[in-house]
Amino acid sequence: MQATSLYQPVQERLDGVVDGLREMAKQRFPLLSELLDYVFSAPGKRMRPAITLLASNFSPHDETLTNTMATAVEMLHIATLIHDDTVDDSALRRGRATISKLWGDNAAVLVGDYIFAASGTFVCDTGNIRVIRRFAETIMELSSGELQELSDIFNPNQTKEQYFERIYNKTASLFTTASESGAVLSGLSENYVGALRDFGYNLGMAFQIVDDILDFDGTEQEIGKPVGNDLVHGILTLPALIAMERYPNDNVIPELFKHPGDEDLLQRAVDMVKDTSILTECYAIAGDYCGKAQSSIMSLPRNPARDSLEEIIVFVTARRV
Amino acid sequence: MQATSLYQPVQERLDGVVDGLREMAKQRFPLLSELLDYVFSAPGKRMRPAITLLASNFSPHDETLTNTMATAVEMLHIATLIHDDTVDDSALRRGRATISKLWGDNAAVLVGDYIFAASGTFVCDTGNIRVIRRFAETIMELSSGELQELSDIFNPNQTKEQYFERIYNKTASLFTTASESGAVLSGLSENYVGALRDFGYNLGMAFQIVDDILDFDGTEQEIGKPVGNDLVHGILTLPALIAMERYPNDNVIPELFKHPGDEDLLQRAVDMVKDTSILTECYAIAGDYCGKAQSSIMSLPRNPARDSLEEIIVFVTARRV
Repeated sequence: MQATSLYQPVQERLDGVVDGLREMAKQRFPLLSELLDYVFSAPGKRMRPAITLLASNFSPHDETLTNTMATAVEMLHIATLIHDDTVDDSALRRGRATISKLWGDNAAVLVGDYIFAASGTFVCDTGNIRVIRRFAETIMELSSGELQELSDIFNPNQTKEQYFERIYNKTASLFTTASESGAVLSGLSENYVGALRDFGYNLGMAFQIVDDILDFDGTEQEIGKPVGNDLVHGILTLPALIAMERYPNDNVIPELFKHPGDEDLLQRAVDMVKDTSILTECYAIAGDYCGKAQSSIMSLPRNPARDSLEEIIVFVTARRV
Repeated sequence: MQATSLYQPVQERLDGVVDGLREMAKQRFPLLSELLDYVFSAPGKRMRPAITLLASNFSPHDETLTNTMATAVEMLHIATLIHDDTVDDSALRRGRATISKLWGDNAAVLVGDYIFAASGTFVCDTGNIRVIRRFAETIMELSSGELQELSDIFNPNQTKEQYFERIYNKTASLFTTASESGAVLSGLSENYVGALRDFGYNLGMAFQIVDDILDFDGTEQEIGKPVGNDLVHGILTLPALIAMERYPNDNVIPELFKHPGDEDLLQRAVDMVKDTSILTECYAIAGDYCGKAQSSIMSLPRNPARDSLEEIIVFVTARRV
């Protein structure tokens, strides 16, 4: 399934957002233009800005506001990816070389800062302080999520509660803001705003859990990185945490964390996760979040935007990439 | 001269701002607390927040707003320093090890992002969209200034115009915003807001030019880094640009840029700048900006805050650190 067909009710507006990003790349000095052109022309699911636009489709309103917000949301997501790739020392992102790889870490840090700030000026253009403030808090949450991950690297003593807090910060936070801001800026009642915020939160949690499952379950070709990549980098995700809970004695994961890079231990850890019902359990947890996302929007009037949000829920669990 | 004695009319409020920063360090997870505690307890001139507070001292107003703004301004400055030190690979900042040195580049990138965003939430608390927008634009300017510097590294073909644009972005931009926001949030008329914006701009330009002079003129002990450090890193500042303009034939600087790290060429370049009237010419240019900063505030009512702003102008040119 092509992600883009999901967004049918707002596809035209979304295309406008993506074109707007490419326009932004025309900057005064060459290095900045090149960098922006490279990042804004990269392919992407555009799921977050699509959610902002869909969430705004329950009430007629000034669409320049929500288009601007959707642009800001996508820019924030892109800025985050640039800094994450720098921090993770990743060479590839969606099959293309990363900014750090091509222009070096320094340019990546600075262009990330630039796009963070530029996204902030877009949100300012909405003129809505509530949304602006929520946006700034989201950037704090995104960076604390990454810092939490960094601080627990190769630490085998983590809880599922810590995991859920971390994935809220690093992923669900922006999904929540994407959805909530579309609702607020289109002037929905607080009930509907709350419903769409809950939708964003639950969808974001499910999205990240599925991401963490695919790290074990996908093929290298599908996910664009080696299977078990999180464990290689010392990151404990839900499948690994359940595996350690289920087999507390002589578990191979703490052993692997003591010997990072040991291929044999890695293979044994991946096999332990894959050869059991652990991934099924993880899918069930993601499914719970999807169920909650689904219930959240049941109070909204049925229209093509709601249908599209429901299809996004299905896509998030079924996706392989 | 102790920088702090300069800020007498707002010293108590400034101390409150600095204490507020330290309070912020009490965060939920240890790594973030440690990082914030380390950066917020570092000594600093606190010149930018002092300017915000002084600029707000021409009209009675709700001081919680301008205290909050001053906090945001100092946080933004600190976030910038953290990313700059990471990009420049600096080991020391004001005699203390940098975050990158102690916790690694990754933590430095992420905690910088966190503090950028946190500063944004403080500005949101002022509830003033004009100021919030200006603040986001300032972050864009700061990062483009750094990107411009990066893009012209070891490039001998640069103009003074490019230099002035770059130092506006990397330094004067935040001075302008610091001063202007204090004026706006204390409810001054547009005339006075304009006067204080001009003050900030001209002071910021002078500040950076003096910084660039001290890179040649200071001793290693005074400036905390080797003399000629900018040239070592391939950065052309005003003294070097004037030297190349004055001695276009067989100038040693392009030669040095072809052989980075050559100690002999570096010494000859530094001597060329120091043995001539170039630094005097640079001080004269900085002096011009100071004169304009001085004229800008002549229209403001004379009060202790204006006296203090005038003393800051003198301090900026006379400083050795």
